[in-house]
Amino acid sequence: MQFVSERRLDDHVVERAFTLGEVPGILWTPGDPADPAPLILLGHPGGLRAMYPRLLARARHALAAGFAAATIELPGGGDRPRSAAAEEARTDLHRALAAGEPVDDGTVDRLVLPLVDQAVPEWRAALDALLAVPEVGGPVGLAGGVISIGVRLAVVEPRIRAAVLFAGSHVPRSVLEEARQVTIPLHVLLQWDDEGNDRQVALELFDAFGSREKTLHANTGGHTGVPHFEGDAANWFFARHLR
Amino acid sequence: MQFVSERRLDDHVVERAFTLGEVPGILWTPGDPADPAPLILLGHPGGLRAMYPRLLARARHALAAGFAAATIELPGGGDRPRSAAAEEARTDLHRALAAGEPVDDGTVDRLVLPLVDQAVPEWRAALDALLAVPEVGGPVGLAGGVISIGVRLAVVEPRIRAAVLFAGSHVPRSVLEEARQVTIPLHVLLQWDDEGNDRQVALELFDAFGSREKTLHANTGGHTGVPHFEGDAANWFFARHLR
Repeated sequence: MQFVSERRLDDHVVERAFTLGEVPGILWTPGDPADPAPLILLGHPGGLRAMYPRLLARARHALAAGFAAATIELPGGGDRPRSAAAEEARTDLHRALAAGEPVDDGTVDRLVLPLVDQAVPEWRAALDALLAVPEVGGPVGLAGGVISIGVRLAVVEPRIRAAVLFAGSHVPRSVLEEARQVTIPLHVLLQWDDEGNDRQVALELFDAFGSREKTLHANTGGHTGVPHFEGDAANWFFARHLR
Repeated sequence: MQFVSERRLDDHVVERAFTLGEVPGILWTPGDPADPAPLILLGHPGGLRAMYPRLLARARHALAAGFAAATIELPGGGDRPRSAAAEEARTDLHRALAAGEPVDDGTVDRLVLPLVDQAVPEWRAALDALLAVPEVGGPVGLAGGVISIGVRLAVVEPRIRAAVLFAGSHVPRSVLEEARQVTIPLHVLLQWDDEGNDRQVALELFDAFGSREKTLHANTGGHTGVPHFEGDAANWFFARHLR
């Protein structure tokens, strides 16, 4: 991991941009670190630059509760090379949504599964590097982002001890099966009136998770309308499981 | 309202038993009251004596967050006279559940609707009396109990500004319609693996509520397995809306 910039945003937050091979990322740590802080990995839909204001707000919120926070760019996001197959699947998805047609399983699989296969090893490599930073400690929490990536990470990465997942994207049938293998505590957000998301599939996914402790927080409103107080609820969840 | 006993449980809690006509009730107020505390009405399935330990725990939790708490006995609960029609409907319900048969709408209506019709005016009369106690102030929150009573109270009683409802009992179809008229902020608890409750009806009910702010908290576990941390979540919800 190469740090490419470091700046102190205020007394409370130090922000460092880094690269891990070809993958850019950002690490936020407390301005006045005492013990190493448990790390929250911030998921997102891809495109760090466009997502930056929201990611920074989420990072500040996590740091205010005593955590460190970090994220990396997704395959095909930002300036990272796009895959022709993924772009084609995305076009098909948008075409179906615009026409009000159901999105077929094949399209979702072509879009999501290669992304999961490529992203998950990158996030695990990022964890190796991030946990070597003196201000960062374990255990690790995962918050948000593409839910299929979150499911795979929750299954394969034992350093992730708890996850806040957003049931808000298209979910391949195979991920519903994979969800049965998840056993860490989960806090699942669902936007009840999400325009682009099938509520029934989201509820099926919640049902499928194998975790003994899982909580669904469903709120009125569309895809981007998660209420502000859910940020606090996520911090309380992580505080219960990462301390 | 006649107070029939008063005792200081510790430095933090004063418990007073009262009667309101034929209806017994309990009021818990802070041991060292400053300003009048916003009131949380504690719902329950009937039978104050059997429910007392759990009600006291909930009252203590509410008082710790700066609220007062109160409850009254339900029609047919505890020593209050039973209605023959309600007892017959309850027998039919238990027979159907024991046989693993679906409970027909008529049975649910016969059991629940007369209870709602009788209980709601009693809870409103209790509010009149409770809000005249110097240590008790408005606004009022409603927490738990028979959900059909909660729905009716949320519709007809303007002093109730926010409600935590437990989607855990049999719900008449007419209550699903009544739910559309509810507009106060709601926090709805659902036990995902509730043996005696139809999950699909509970989700329909959540969907039906007319409130702009409504949040569903669904947790793994059976009817009585609501996780301890949901007590804190309910307090945070009330703190947002009753202060």
